[in-house]
Amino acid sequence: MQAFDLIIRNANVVTAADGFLCDIGIRDGRIVALGLGLQCAAQEVDAQGRTVTPGGIDSHVHLDQPTGDGSIMADDFESGTRSAACGGTTTVIPFACQQKGQTLRAAVEDYHRRADGRALIDYAFHLIVTDPTEDVLRRELPELIAEGYTSFKIYMTYDALKLNDREILETLSVARAEGAMVMLHAENSDCIAWLTERLLAAGHSAPRYHATSRPMLVEREATHRAIALAELVDVPILIVHVSGREAIEQIRWAQSHGLKVYGETCPQYLFLTADSLGCDDSFEGAKCICSPPPRDAGNQQVVWDGLQNGSFEVFSSDHAPFRYAGTDGKRAHGDAAPFSEVANGIPGIETRMALLWSEGVRKGRISPQAFVALTATNAARLYGLYPRKGSIAIGSDADLVIWDENLDLELTNDNLHHNVDYTPYEGMRLSAWPAMTFARGERVWDGNALGEPGRGEFLPCARPEPAKARRRATELPE
Amino acid sequence: MQAFDLIIRNANVVTAADGFLCDIGIRDGRIVALGLGLQCAAQEVDAQGRTVTPGGIDSHVHLDQPTGDGSIMADDFESGTRSAACGGTTTVIPFACQQKGQTLRAAVEDYHRRADGRALIDYAFHLIVTDPTEDVLRRELPELIAEGYTSFKIYMTYDALKLNDREILETLSVARAEGAMVMLHAENSDCIAWLTERLLAAGHSAPRYHATSRPMLVEREATHRAIALAELVDVPILIVHVSGREAIEQIRWAQSHGLKVYGETCPQYLFLTADSLGCDDSFEGAKCICSPPPRDAGNQQVVWDGLQNGSFEVFSSDHAPFRYAGTDGKRAHGDAAPFSEVANGIPGIETRMALLWSEGVRKGRISPQAFVALTATNAARLYGLYPRKGSIAIGSDADLVIWDENLDLELTNDNLHHNVDYTPYEGMRLSAWPAMTFARGERVWDGNALGEPGRGEFLPCARPEPAKARRRATELPE
Amino acid sequence: MQAFDLIIRNANVVTAADGFLCDIGIRDGRIVALGLGLQCAAQEVDAQGRTVTPGGIDSHVHLDQPTGDGSIMADDFESGTRSAACGGTTTVIPFACQQKGQTLRAAVEDYHRRADGRALIDYAFHLIVTDPTEDVLRRELPELIAEGYTSFKIYMTYDALKLNDREILETLSVARAEGAMVMLHAENSDCIAWLTERLLAAGHSAPRYHATSRPMLVEREATHRAIALAELVDVPILIVHVSGREAIEQIRWAQSHGLKVYGETCPQYLFLTADSLGCDDSFEGAKCICSPPPRDAGNQQVVWDGLQNGSFEVFSSDHAPFRYAGTDGKRAHGDAAPFSEVANGIPGIETRMALLWSEGVRKGRISPQAFVALTATNAARLYGLYPRKGSIAIGSDADLVIWDENLDLELTNDNLHHNVDYTPYEGMRLSAWPAMTFARGERVWDGNALGEPGRGEFLPCARPEPAKARRRATELPE
Amino acid sequence: MQAFDLIIRNANVVTAADGFLCDIGIRDGRIVALGLGLQCAAQEVDAQGRTVTPGGIDSHVHLDQPTGDGSIMADDFESGTRSAACGGTTTVIPFACQQKGQTLRAAVEDYHRRADGRALIDYAFHLIVTDPTEDVLRRELPELIAEGYTSFKIYMTYDALKLNDREILETLSVARAEGAMVMLHAENSDCIAWLTERLLAAGHSAPRYHATSRPMLVEREATHRAIALAELVDVPILIVHVSGREAIEQIRWAQSHGLKVYGETCPQYLFLTADSLGCDDSFEGAKCICSPPPRDAGNQQVVWDGLQNGSFEVFSSDHAPFRYAGTDGKRAHGDAAPFSEVANGIPGIETRMALLWSEGVRKGRISPQAFVALTATNAARLYGLYPRKGSIAIGSDADLVIWDENLDLELTNDNLHHNVDYTPYEGMRLSAWPAMTFARGERVWDGNALGEPGRGEFLPCARPEPAKARRRATELPE
Repeated sequence: MQAFDLIIRNANVVTAADGFLCDIGIRDGRIVALGLGLQCAAQEVDAQGRTVTPGGIDSHVHLDQPTGDGSIMADDFESGTRSAACGGTTTVIPFACQQKGQTLRAAVEDYHRRADGRALIDYAFHLIVTDPTEDVLRRELPELIAEGYTSFKIYMTYDALKLNDREILETLSVARAEGAMVMLHAENSDCIAWLTERLLAAGHSAPRYHATSRPMLVEREATHRAIALAELVDVPILIVHVSGREAIEQIRWAQSHGLKVYGETCPQYLFLTADSLGCDDSFEGAKCICSPPPRDAGNQQVVWDGLQNGSFEVFSSDHAPFRYAGTDGKRAHGDAAPFSEVANGIPGIETRMALLWSEGVRKGRISPQAFVALTATNAARLYGLYPRKGSIAIGSDADLVIWDENLDLELTNDNLHHNVDYTPYEGMRLSAWPAMTFARGERVWDGNALGEPGRGEFLPCARPEPAKARRRATELPE
Repeated sequence: MQAFDLIIRNANVVTAADGFLCDIGIRDGRIVALGLGLQCAAQEVDAQGRTVTPGGIDSHVHLDQPTGDGSIMADDFESGTRSAACGGTTTVIPFACQQKGQTLRAAVEDYHRRADGRALIDYAFHLIVTDPTEDVLRRELPELIAEGYTSFKIYMTYDALKLNDREILETLSVARAEGAMVMLHAENSDCIAWLTERLLAAGHSAPRYHATSRPMLVEREATHRAIALAELVDVPILIVHVSGREAIEQIRWAQSHGLKVYGETCPQYLFLTADSLGCDDSFEGAKCICSPPPRDAGNQQVVWDGLQNGSFEVFSSDHAPFRYAGTDGKRAHGDAAPFSEVANGIPGIETRMALLWSEGVRKGRISPQAFVALTATNAARLYGLYPRKGSIAIGSDADLVIWDENLDLELTNDNLHHNVDYTPYEGMRLSAWPAMTFARGERVWDGNALGEPGRGEFLPCARPEPAKARRRATELPE
Repeated sequence: MQAFDLIIRNANVVTAADGFLCDIGIRDGRIVALGLGLQCAAQEVDAQGRTVTPGGIDSHVHLDQPTGDGSIMADDFESGTRSAACGGTTTVIPFACQQKGQTLRAAVEDYHRRADGRALIDYAFHLIVTDPTEDVLRRELPELIAEGYTSFKIYMTYDALKLNDREILETLSVARAEGAMVMLHAENSDCIAWLTERLLAAGHSAPRYHATSRPMLVEREATHRAIALAELVDVPILIVHVSGREAIEQIRWAQSHGLKVYGETCPQYLFLTADSLGCDDSFEGAKCICSPPPRDAGNQQVVWDGLQNGSFEVFSSDHAPFRYAGTDGKRAHGDAAPFSEVANGIPGIETRMALLWSEGVRKGRISPQAFVALTATNAARLYGLYPRKGSIAIGSDADLVIWDENLDLELTNDNLHHNVDYTPYEGMRLSAWPAMTFARGERVWDGNALGEPGRGEFLPCARPEPAKARRRATELPE
Repeated sequence: MQAFDLIIRNANVVTAADGFLCDIGIRDGRIVALGLGLQCAAQEVDAQGRTVTPGGIDSHVHLDQPTGDGSIMADDFESGTRSAACGGTTTVIPFACQQKGQTLRAAVEDYHRRADGRALIDYAFHLIVTDPTEDVLRRELPELIAEGYTSFKIYMTYDALKLNDREILETLSVARAEGAMVMLHAENSDCIAWLTERLLAAGHSAPRYHATSRPMLVEREATHRAIALAELVDVPILIVHVSGREAIEQIRWAQSHGLKVYGETCPQYLFLTADSLGCDDSFEGAKCICSPPPRDAGNQQVVWDGLQNGSFEVFSSDHAPFRYAGTDGKRAHGDAAPFSEVANGIPGIETRMALLWSEGVRKGRISPQAFVALTATNAARLYGLYPRKGSIAIGSDADLVIWDENLDLELTNDNLHHNVDYTPYEGMRLSAWPAMTFARGERVWDGNALGEPGRGEFLPCARPEPAKARRRATELPE
């Protein structure tokens, strides 16, 4: 009788805390043994002492999400999860987005239809709450949370998505009562609208003015406000895609004062700047339009500092795939559409892991353990996927990446597997890339994209349990 | 020929910078000479070496202002200005408040009708902008600013008054273009509404829950937001009635970063606490309902620190006169109305100066010069009344207070001249009170209230000129 | 053939990152397998699903250390390590303390003589550098670091121990060049001396004045200075036994600015206050004399916040064992000696782990993973004992604690195994205590103290490798 | 009979609070009247509506001060005060510096001998305490304070001058007991020595390495420490010549926490940078060697912000006159002496006022009133010269400057009256310069240097009375 379906030998296993050399024994898609000299497997892979990390969890991606504004996301669950797997990610959490007027249930069901039979890796859903009616707050959200949709995102900007402060408070209250995790997109909507109007009126419509229209203070203000609202309701929150110093200062202030405020950042805030949106009025800069916009070298350093000193819990891609060519992506409103009409977002689902390993771990900025925490373990905990996902531990899914290091690889879109026609990191040189990716013990990447669409399963999420927030603001009746 | 109409001899003159003994020569209501041994006056008053300060400017008072909610302000321009004069204040700046749907012009004209022929001391008007239509922003405000209504207040809370962020930005833009000064009432409206609803639903309706419904963070958040909006527009602002540490930290942060953000505080934040609203469910606490609510002893100390270290520019009363007895003041919605329906505000126009002199100057917390700056000079500068008002200087109006010190006076409402039936400071012992108040050289208080209604004149205000703010946020087209 | 010497079955294994149920396979004192259904062991222990954590590393303890002032430490390596083991600690790092005029080598050799054959658990040595002569700096320190003494402590106070700023810079430079870790005791010596002199002159000599003589600012100042000196030299440091808010603010400031500044705190700053030193002049308070002194409830909360938000890396005991009775401990200078002559320190080597598990983990303040990081893993990394010590990982020493939880245990000195006649926590109720402690696979505690003196081995330490500090201060020639 | 010796007509008088047009009546060297249409003067000067400010008080200058290191100060009381008067300064406060081993009394007497009969304007003395023996602390300092030497400076660096923390505490205690004002030169001596040694060893001896040897953190650390020591003793202090952001943040932190910590800055921190010390190894940079060194453009802006927002009380020159040519100034140790042997200091007594008026007031960065406060009034108050000096007020000395504005003046050393052979501001263009300076009513500058040596008088100082500091640190017996 064979003890294991697969043994990965001589793995330099890295978890969010540890690093040690051993064999990994896998059975039925799960890790069932870590040890020296494991025996009796149907199959063996020799890692030859290379680093093996948990497969990445990309907890902030947009796949096949209806935009409602004419642009179409280039990646569906098939191309998106294939791209993810090729880059070392084994779980994604895209967003089931409620349209205003729609029930959450309808949004979830629609999104399942888009995912069913297509994903190559496992996936969970965040909700996006855009229309918090009484029925949504009192019935739908509690029901869906109970069913495994335990996190949701709130937008403070974008007309089609944003909630006002009162709606945020009501929605946060449900999160508190039901034990869900709330993600906040923190930018002040009115400021952006006011700036955009003035910029367009002055003829400043090129992509680079996107950055001008969303200065750092716009993000700082909304971050402060989100923190205050969460402090009032006394509930943990996570601020997504934090771009630089002023927002980080707000988050650290909150953490210093005992509040459960978590932060997420993304590769674009480490490797791009506002200059990536262009120094002239060329439309090329549209490729890097995303919100908040990338800032400058000084802010990049502060984001690195934040990764080092624990200000951030999560490093995600915020993959939002729009093609540059054609008429349904960045050009959905024309070849020279004003920045305000260009679809927001950049691709990054495949490059996230290698960028952080190459520039972060191998350049000594962060430890391998911090890499694992930021790319996998913390997200699993915050979103209720732990311990099934996010670590190399007995009983966990055998989601694993064996790393090739000491490469000198030029990043080029030709080598990527998403359905977007560019990468913002074209031409960067990387020293590392996943040699193999295993998802529930199955090899899905080894230089070739493997794995059948549909092999990925939907993951209902447990309620996350960050240590209970202390009440601070007021002695409020529940 | 007589050189002077009046000489005040042996005055220990205090300005915002100086202190010196001299005679003050007054002609035609103005100070025309400061010197030793002035001669030839129709009249003389011997100050006998007592302190003489500029008459106070109370730049935040509510008199005969329509409330729209059934309660009636107990003080009109006659009783209010009489009370002011008896307390050493010689100029008031109440608010011409636009009703939603009303033109600013109509509000101003209505307010002039209320003032005409009634005031005992001079007065200017702030505007309150509640309905910033295109016509208000493009035509009315610029016109009114040009006519001498150069400051206006924006509310971030109260349904009948508040502006949203976009409206605030538009209104601040007009202030920037026209050189007006903007006052902001900074509390987060949605948070208050959310808390209030929950408190009332839980049966917590007594006056003391007013404080629970507006915790410090509600003020901190709006203060941060107001600062961010002003930073974006690049315009000076003044945060009114700041109540404690968290808001002061925001203001000092802004000042440290080169922003022109000014702060105002009031006696209630030095001498009252949330306990003043009651420790049980008695309605008595309604007397001290004001917004933001008074905090606690720790916050009082931080407000004192802020007066010492220059965080604050202005010390005003926020006099908002509602009678406790009767049915048109605090009880307009009944004897046991929930806190949310009780008219907001406390009286203080007569006690402001003596409270700060007695507790601040005479107890060594602030210098006499700081007293003058906080109660008169700074307000004159910020609101365009300088140099006519706010100092003891050649050419300035002879608005003067001769102080009695070394008193042991019990503050009691019986001795006050407002038309409110209580003072929140009943029973406090003071060591100082104005012996005489002169307004444009005319004695209006010497233990008796003197001066005829109508002697006070309307003061058109110049544009204030605080040193130009530096642009910080963004390179915005004008 | 037996695969394992010992299997611990059904362990709820907790590491600094993870938690999972498995069997632990142990051979030759090391963990060689983690897995489900391990087979073939000489011996088995059924953990019955109970939590199993790494054995604690107490990286700040004083055992049999010559004091030079007449008092004698009550615990030598035998009683001290027995007490440690009974409390779940499997590694200690006491201090080989250079006497002024002595070589470091002599201090190390003397300290080995004190340890040899006595310890029940493994131990490493920190050095204490008190006399940084040229020979110490250029020859001895580099040699000793190369031999495995890779961390040393610098005192900023105590006449017999302290270095001045110049000496600190020279010593930090060696740490930078040789890759050692520096611990700093941060209190301003001159301030303490000045205060002490005035207190004694005023007749304030009772133990409680010890706290008065070392106010928070004294610690804040030295913490700021230590950080500045480390910033100048560009070298990581660890501030030991941090007691409260003002020092934590300094540490977080440094961490926010990208400096490698680590913090340690101890049980006394969570569970004692200045009141523990007495509210009258009784000598009883001498039991709680330690430096810095415990502060107050507000500071306790800030220390808890610091444990939650990652400000601290290490939670140690600072065990400094002096008997209260007798004439060689707290009373070495008499029954009513002034506070300044009472030996500094409190016992805590046995209670550290249970206090933090009971009050921290079980009361929801910190996660079990944070507990492991703070009590074991981080210290192993910072002091070069990782991966041999500090985790439950393949290849690591089988240093393990099986926890009993759901207890209602009254802490009493009678049940402790140190040689001190009191515990400052007498009477506290705990909900958890180690059921069994294993050290290199050998059971050393199971309700009875087991293990022979001498079974503990000396551990040479590797150079720690925290991510390289960035140069910030100046472009200094090396 | 003539009422006035002199009337200055049509003066646009500016005080630290006010601005108004009037005539100034002067008798016996004092201002006796401010008014419209003053009559009967022996002499009249028509100011023609030009600005008239108080004569400057330069409260930080070095004149004819023994250096003990071979270099000689180029300005004695005659040339120094002539230069001052030509630049609009009417009072100077140089330093009577105790040599180690010397009594304070001897230092004061020696310094009087140097001043007697030479000064063209009035002067007071600060003491410099370098040797705080028991006799100095218990007898000399109290006596000298009583005699009018009410302020003293403490150095935290320079071997010949510095006090250690304990000595600083003792000296601050005397200041508290006797009501004196303490100025602190805040740089960490050991850090500078350590850096200097390493720089010199690496052959980096050119003037520009002076800046490298004293980075901002060296100043930040000492500033924090000075504040902590003053907080402990509970006494106001003034931090002299603050150079940039990190020190200002410390000062503002202290002010935010209710401490009486004042700040001074100087022209070199607004108009010079480290680049002024040279970009190559030329000795020319020696001209700008001063401590702390000038920083960079970012720090200049923060210093401007500090002048605007009230962080600073005083703007002084720190005039320290050493000739560049010859062998007794900057070259006292040779033509290519290492930076560490070059006399520290730059000239600036004559340019201080015009630089701040031209660049500060006329460019809209600070108000005219702030100029007066910073250059005259605040220093008069802090050092006990008020009300005799520092303002335009009845009874004050008639120390006045009439300003020429709208100039386009090139600053060149040829036009200055000091005895130094360079100015660091050579070639700067200024828009303003004093047209006339009056000292006690006597014209001492009107384009020509007037006034006889010896006309300046020594000014005994009163005890300053900043509002009493609150005890914060500890309940210390007095």
